[in-house]
Amino acid sequence: MESNTVFLPVILAVVGLVFMFIKMSWVKKQEAGDEKMKSISKSIKEGALAFLNAEYKLLLIFSIIASIALFIISQLVDTTHWIIVVAFIIGAIFSALAGNIGMRIATDANARTTEAAKTSLPKALQVSFGGGTVMGLGVAGLAVLGLSLFFFLFVTMFVTGEGSFYKEMTVALEALAGFSLGAESIALFARVGGGIYTKAADVGADLVGKVEAGIPEDDPRNPATIADNVGDNVGDVAGMGADLFGSYVATVLAAMVLGNYVVRDMSTTTQFTDAFNGMGPILLPLVIAGVGIIASIIGTFLVKIKDNSAKEAEVQKALDLGNWTSILITLIASWFLIQWMLPETLKMSFFGEGIQEVPSRHVFYSGMIGLAVGALISTVTAYYTSLGKKPVLDIVQNSSTGAATNIIAGLAVGMKSTFLSVILFAAAIYGSYALAGFYGVALAASAMMATTAMQLAIDAFGPIADNAGGVAEMSELEDHVRERTDILDSVGNTTAAVGKGFAIASAALTALALFAAYVTFTGIDGINIFKADVLAMLFVGGMIPVIFSALAMESVGKAAMEMVQEVRRQFKEIPGIMEGTGTPDYAKCVDISTKAALKEMILPGLITIITPIIIGLLFKAEALGGYMAGVCVSGVMWAIFQNNAGGAWDNAKKSFEAGVEINGEMTFKGSDAHKAAVTGDTVGDPFKDTSGPSMNILIKLTCLVGLVIAPILGGHSAESHASNTQLIKEVQVESELKDNEKSVATITTTVVKDGKKESKVIKVEGTKEEVAQAIKKVQE
Amino acid sequence: MESNTVFLPVILAVVGLVFMFIKMSWVKKQEAGDEKMKSISKSIKEGALAFLNAEYKLLLIFSIIASIALFIISQLVDTTHWIIVVAFIIGAIFSALAGNIGMRIATDANARTTEAAKTSLPKALQVSFGGGTVMGLGVAGLAVLGLSLFFFLFVTMFVTGEGSFYKEMTVALEALAGFSLGAESIALFARVGGGIYTKAADVGADLVGKVEAGIPEDDPRNPATIADNVGDNVGDVAGMGADLFGSYVATVLAAMVLGNYVVRDMSTTTQFTDAFNGMGPILLPLVIAGVGIIASIIGTFLVKIKDNSAKEAEVQKALDLGNWTSILITLIASWFLIQWMLPETLKMSFFGEGIQEVPSRHVFYSGMIGLAVGALISTVTAYYTSLGKKPVLDIVQNSSTGAATNIIAGLAVGMKSTFLSVILFAAAIYGSYALAGFYGVALAASAMMATTAMQLAIDAFGPIADNAGGVAEMSELEDHVRERTDILDSVGNTTAAVGKGFAIASAALTALALFAAYVTFTGIDGINIFKADVLAMLFVGGMIPVIFSALAMESVGKAAMEMVQEVRRQFKEIPGIMEGTGTPDYAKCVDISTKAALKEMILPGLITIITPIIIGLLFKAEALGGYMAGVCVSGVMWAIFQNNAGGAWDNAKKSFEAGVEINGEMTFKGSDAHKAAVTGDTVGDPFKDTSGPSMNILIKLTCLVGLVIAPILGGHSAESHASNTQLIKEVQVESELKDNEKSVATITTTVVKDGKKESKVIKVEGTKEEVAQAIKKVQE
Repeated sequence: MESNTVFLPVILAVVGLVFMFIKMSWVKKQEAGDEKMKSISKSIKEGALAFLNAEYKLLLIFSIIASIALFIISQLVDTTHWIIVVAFIIGAIFSALAGNIGMRIATDANARTTEAAKTSLPKALQVSFGGGTVMGLGVAGLAVLGLSLFFFLFVTMFVTGEGSFYKEMTVALEALAGFSLGAESIALFARVGGGIYTKAADVGADLVGKVEAGIPEDDPRNPATIADNVGDNVGDVAGMGADLFGSYVATVLAAMVLGNYVVRDMSTTTQFTDAFNGMGPILLPLVIAGVGIIASIIGTFLVKIKDNSAKEAEVQKALDLGNWTSILITLIASWFLIQWMLPETLKMSFFGEGIQEVPSRHVFYSGMIGLAVGALISTVTAYYTSLGKKPVLDIVQNSSTGAATNIIAGLAVGMKSTFLSVILFAAAIYGSYALAGFYGVALAASAMMATTAMQLAIDAFGPIADNAGGVAEMSELEDHVRERTDILDSVGNTTAAVGKGFAIASAALTALALFAAYVTFTGIDGINIFKADVLAMLFVGGMIPVIFSALAMESVGKAAMEMVQEVRRQFKEIPGIMEGTGTPDYAKCVDISTKAALKEMILPGLITIITPIIIGLLFKAEALGGYMAGVCVSGVMWAIFQNNAGGAWDNAKKSFEAGVEINGEMTFKGSDAHKAAVTGDTVGDPFKDTSGPSMNILIKLTCLVGLVIAPILGGHSAESHASNTQLIKEVQVESELKDNEKSVATITTTVVKDGKKESKVIKVEGTKEEVAQAIKKVQE
Repeated sequence: MESNTVFLPVILAVVGLVFMFIKMSWVKKQEAGDEKMKSISKSIKEGALAFLNAEYKLLLIFSIIASIALFIISQLVDTTHWIIVVAFIIGAIFSALAGNIGMRIATDANARTTEAAKTSLPKALQVSFGGGTVMGLGVAGLAVLGLSLFFFLFVTMFVTGEGSFYKEMTVALEALAGFSLGAESIALFARVGGGIYTKAADVGADLVGKVEAGIPEDDPRNPATIADNVGDNVGDVAGMGADLFGSYVATVLAAMVLGNYVVRDMSTTTQFTDAFNGMGPILLPLVIAGVGIIASIIGTFLVKIKDNSAKEAEVQKALDLGNWTSILITLIASWFLIQWMLPETLKMSFFGEGIQEVPSRHVFYSGMIGLAVGALISTVTAYYTSLGKKPVLDIVQNSSTGAATNIIAGLAVGMKSTFLSVILFAAAIYGSYALAGFYGVALAASAMMATTAMQLAIDAFGPIADNAGGVAEMSELEDHVRERTDILDSVGNTTAAVGKGFAIASAALTALALFAAYVTFTGIDGINIFKADVLAMLFVGGMIPVIFSALAMESVGKAAMEMVQEVRRQFKEIPGIMEGTGTPDYAKCVDISTKAALKEMILPGLITIITPIIIGLLFKAEALGGYMAGVCVSGVMWAIFQNNAGGAWDNAKKSFEAGVEINGEMTFKGSDAHKAAVTGDTVGDPFKDTSGPSMNILIKLTCLVGLVIAPILGGHSAESHASNTQLIKEVQVESELKDNEKSVATITTTVVKDGKKESKVIKVEGTKEEVAQAIKKVQE
């Protein structure tokens, strides 16, 4: 009966999706306000969908090319079945669908939040967070559903019991990697394209509107104002959603691949069996993800405030309560799931140390490390980017001596913030590996990602509140409405910064789990950077995130310039626009942002996908591993640096709104120091919203592409398994296995190498199990 | 007779030093101008020496601590003799001496250049370049002299022929590493401390002088003006000199260490012998360095211009002619040296590919790769930072929309400049390794560094010309004097940017050669980043350059603020200072810069030295290797990024002096765009003069510290040689070696591992040499 556990995650995912639909219809039933509000909300929605539709067209072309490439790979490689193409396409569709659902509900929820804020702050929170919940559950539900169904299908297709379980499962998981690749490809378009879109619109709207025409933010006379509000959704809702969808799927996949190695290592003497058809360690990450959805649903019920007098602190407390509750439930559930699904003692091969025994509770501790490090990195991020904390205050102080010192201080804050984050991250790798090998590392990532639904609900609520404020402004509502949405928006800014910390931490751990899966997939003996080609590629990999960031930043500049020219044109050519009698052509601005964003993302996108393929084909598997490591190390640094510098600059500028004390004097908006802080914020905008978050996609996609092409690379050097198989002529084993007595075996391996014949005789003495294990190892 | 070749580099070094003294007395004999000029020059000299003296005090404390630490290491480890302490101290003294000579001549040459410029531009070039030549020859001569004498001493002490040549030579080279460590430690103080000094004085002088008091640059009424001019010498002369002294010594050392492995690999059957007591491959790098000194001297004779009508292009051409001539001579000489000193066919063990035969001309080709890549990286650097080229013009264009877009454009230029530099660098690693293994990589670095004397002469001439302009300004001389020194200064700016490209390229190759020497020293099986501890340390290593840069940047800010307050105080308290009747207290400003610089460099210095020691002791040799690789990869990116962004911002600002066309309009100094460009330049100052160049020291010192502590770390994993030696119980060899027939050997190795006894029998068949080689390998 328990062998049907494969359906458990399916059921949990469906529960999540059902709850999503209930929540969605509840949000939609809310009052959307007067005609003006409805019309604004409609414009934003249309703009957002216009971006999505344009993106889909580009995606279609990309998917066709990628599908053909995958099909060719599947024809060249034994372990890759053509069905990987189907998995890829469905992965892309599911990810796009999740983004679509999120965008629709976010753009539905904004005006409804504004309307609710007219009478009640608790209701406004309920609506905006409800929108976020729909987004979160959509992403998590579709991810788990897709993964489980495909896994079920592939197991049925490939794990027939005719050949070795391990090899058949490898084929199944290789096909499943297609689903993950599809999901991450969409993330590339959504995160990078969305990042360019949102900043191009923002900068374009500000430069002409605020600076040249002197009209306030979100003023309906500004032709780019709708594009700006669309941008919040495109970047922060769809982009973040696709990013986490990709991480979520990739983490679970990597953990499953590494689970398969645990099964292999446990099958040295006899094939490992358990109540889950011998798939316990492989299924576990999937089930934990499913349970995380339910825990997230429970958590969302706790996110509420009492009355209209609530301030930021109460809203934040409500979000924290929901978040920690769902984390705690997942943690407790994981303890029992691990007891249930894993054998009490696992066997894992540790590099250079042979096969070791690991108690299953160590896997749980690895998960705890993942959760703890995720929370701590978020805390570090919050410290470096929050109002009133030392780093932001430092930047504020340095604004008094001009823009240059503000910039230097901001850069320094971003750079310094890498210290604790990287130490924590390194400790997570070290600790979870020491506990349970790379399976432990993958489980740490899985635990961190388990409550993705809740994380996304909290993340998506921010831009909805931000948009609600925009709707209030554009509809010229009473001040108390904007004040209420501002409370929500302000909390949203903090959660956005923390969310970015979470996103990069999870992306980095995901990438590492994929990296481990890659090394094991290719069958190489690790990645030795003492080989010149591997070392050279480590440097090349380290350079890619830097170039990618530069391209992304420049793209924002170019796209913003196009927007500036269009807004200037409209101000000149459309009569009565400044007097409020003429209507600006919002759609034209949306169109420009859309086209520019998608055009500009092609080059960095191509670099991300094609570079690992070229390196893999030219320099083979181990050098590609070096490249992947270089991308990850450098990518993590540049992501943390850019995200936190950008976040800190933003809040340094915001500090002036309430007034700050500089050299004993209170300083406010409009002062020279404030102007310097605005310069810093403008520099930080592409950092924190475009190039910084793009690093997540870059490192994950690099490792995923590597994993998918792994089977065509094979080992590189002569010692690798892959090339050894061609060289080994003969393995002879003479053994005497005795219970409770010393067993002996003589293993003779004959190898033909460079035309020379070499025999290697290994004599093994020890207990029966030890000898059997050694024989098994040689025979493989 | 040829066995006395060890004296050849000594003789060449002495020739270089003699020529240096001749040049020095020639420069000193030149007219130093009127009393005012002499007094200004004297103040600068006194300030520079005051910095050096303060530095020496700090150094003394540091050297005592480091000496004690080294002595303890030497007592713990068999292969480390206590004499390493002496080598360390002499290395530090030689490096300090080279810096001292350079500073003295540079501060002597400035007023003499000004005086010469009164009548003749060719003479002014001759004097300023003469000063640079003294610096260059002092550095190169002392480096080669120190290395050769110590090598001779250590070979006499340790290579007695009683034990294995390879092991005895290892002890000698390990002691020689102390000399290199001493030199690099001084570089840390000179480069980082000097970098902080020069920018603190510069920013401090500008903020109060130019901005607050409205007096021009180099105005004698500014109390910080002497400190500013001292800073040019402290940062660009002493700092750059110590940096290259360190690189030069470390490169030659690493090449010698790797040469010893070539000797070992060639001694598998019988001990390798040649006309150089079996030390040909070890001596070669030392001899090439010595020949490079002579080639540089010849090159310096070609640096001259015809008459006063010469412009920047002629001066640049004269420098290029000298530079390329010395490179060409070195190249040709290297061809013959390699023919003479290396056997026609070398044997080298390539990782995972066993021992391979390499023709000696491949070593020459590796050297050519080093020279080509050094020149190309310098060209790339020049492209990204030169006036009139696209990157700088892009920044200029982006200045028209304000400081923020200027900053973004500058950051993007710096980031994009990593692309070609890293590709070239990776190609150098890949190519020189493919040709001649890590010995080839080290020879590539050696070839690049061979003409260090010439490179430094060109580098040091810039700040001398800059100072000469300052002296002209402060002495209120006629305009044509300043115009002439400005021509030299302008060329000096270009050579400074190119010099920084050369410095980072050579530092990176040096670090790699040290890294290779480290891996071989520790006897570990390479650096496998598929092990979690190694991977974790790769991330930690990647973070260090980021933190180091942040600390260095902040240090500049703090030190500059102290300077600002002092200058403000003097303006307020010293009567008649602005009217020119009161004399400012220059010495006080020099003192503040000195103290602040040395105080601020302690933390980054400690991080650099202590982190690798902690990691080595806690996580063992392989993890430390991961850390070193992380520091190198990340350090190279951040160095290129910061140097080139800073250089490009600087020239973007300078573009406005001659006027630039922005959107069809000519824009000049004082415009809003120019103000934005000034902001960019201010951000870039610490980038290009403090944190960027510090990366060179960081990566080299990290690898050197690793190399010095290598013997106490031993191998980490069970497969390493170091721990195997404890486990191997017995090696039995039965062999039948026959000429012209098939030889056979049976090697039985018995190992005790985790209480189990394992025997490994290897049967080898092949020619006599092949079998002998295999036996040798196992026995080692």
